[in-house]
Amino acid sequence: MIISKTKQEVKEPRITLVGAGPGDAELISLKGVRILKSADVVLYDALVNNELLDFAPEHAMKVYVGKRSGDHSYSQEAVNKLMIDYALNYGHVVRLKGGDPFVFGRGFEELEMAASYSIPAEVVPGISSSISVPALQGIPVTHRGTSESFWVITGTTTSGEVSKDLYAAAKTDATVVVLMGVRKLKEIAAIFEAEGKGRLPVAVIQNGSMANEKVVVGTVATIAEAAADQKIGAPALIVFGEVVGLHALYQPIRAFYECSE
Amino acid sequence: MIISKTKQEVKEPRITLVGAGPGDAELISLKGVRILKSADVVLYDALVNNELLDFAPEHAMKVYVGKRSGDHSYSQEAVNKLMIDYALNYGHVVRLKGGDPFVFGRGFEELEMAASYSIPAEVVPGISSSISVPALQGIPVTHRGTSESFWVITGTTTSGEVSKDLYAAAKTDATVVVLMGVRKLKEIAAIFEAEGKGRLPVAVIQNGSMANEKVVVGTVATIAEAAADQKIGAPALIVFGEVVGLHALYQPIRAFYECSE
Repeated sequence: MIISKTKQEVKEPRITLVGAGPGDAELISLKGVRILKSADVVLYDALVNNELLDFAPEHAMKVYVGKRSGDHSYSQEAVNKLMIDYALNYGHVVRLKGGDPFVFGRGFEELEMAASYSIPAEVVPGISSSISVPALQGIPVTHRGTSESFWVITGTTTSGEVSKDLYAAAKTDATVVVLMGVRKLKEIAAIFEAEGKGRLPVAVIQNGSMANEKVVVGTVATIAEAAADQKIGAPALIVFGEVVGLHALYQPIRAFYECSE
Repeated sequence: MIISKTKQEVKEPRITLVGAGPGDAELISLKGVRILKSADVVLYDALVNNELLDFAPEHAMKVYVGKRSGDHSYSQEAVNKLMIDYALNYGHVVRLKGGDPFVFGRGFEELEMAASYSIPAEVVPGISSSISVPALQGIPVTHRGTSESFWVITGTTTSGEVSKDLYAAAKTDATVVVLMGVRKLKEIAAIFEAEGKGRLPVAVIQNGSMANEKVVVGTVATIAEAAADQKIGAPALIVFGEVVGLHALYQPIRAFYECSE
């Protein structure tokens, strides 16, 4: 028996970008789960917890479109094209993205692509790793008397250069959170060192919110070596700022500096 | 009959700070809901959606400890004291806080207070309004080719002055998100104007993610008047940056400037 689709059976195309949160499957929102339950297709990224796919209906297609930083096997253009093709052919496409779709997630480009095909699209925000991963390590990005602001910057720009915003950030008192920058840790730390901030506390957190989470705490002057010693690699984020001094692992470092003065 | 508590009946004290998200009740995390279900007491803030209280058991006490910006009827010290008292007397206290507990939420002070009484405490991150409220308006805080970073700053510092970080931020290309600053909108816009940024796009969003959400879009030069015209007030956040130019309401403003050139 050959089953062919009739006009009736083709669902209205629709796209929803959903933030999956930092990694722990429980950190997706209720709305994210509700949307997943109505998916016909889920296109999911590398840093998304695979347990979340179980919220999608059994009949829904689950398609991995991940690219880890440095690996461009699936270009953004290819993902955009897949997303449109699936929506036109199968109905509701859920783009499940690590963290929040608009924090270096290229989510807006996907919305623009949907709009260019007149496909209705919406966004469900997610818990961004930029705030939550430090938080789960006991590092508040803001703290009264210590930090009145935080600045989140990508370590990997389109050109492959370090973002010029990092040079500006190193001059300020903001807590600075760098995403996708661990491969350039030495270069980024040198920017802060050049501002006379060799003793500013720094943390590098790998696989934040997951069972295999790792953290290294040090100062601008010591962090690159400490992270190399501990074999910290991507995916990881870097936090620069006095708030890192609140982390338990920073206390012996503080004591060392105080004794040596 | 008089019922008196025996040692056996007193539960172990325990505190969990839970981020409730920006307002929409569906934007709390699965973990936040799970934790609420085990609450003996919920202490909740002004900007928390009251629907979330229904996740707590019926027997749990629900205590409002809200303070809106400018209103200090419940001091942080009073909240800290209540939190400890309830934990010691009733068991599991859930501190339900708007947005994320560590984004100007004074969450770390509450953790320190818990630690000083040796009460176990943990944090469940929330979806911060700083990222999600612009997102739900279609404004991405980062966008390839437009913004490589975003800087989140409080408009209300301990001293009552505008944060000095705002003066630094106005000099940069970062998307700048100001929380709790709408009452000082004119003063804050003037800081950007002084940097020659009169035409930088700005959005003010009140009650983000809620049914009564309001948005005004303009430029640094026009936003204070436009927000006053539209009677935009707290709670609201302000977004400065080229990414605001992606908002649908900005298109006529862009057309106006282009015609007048």
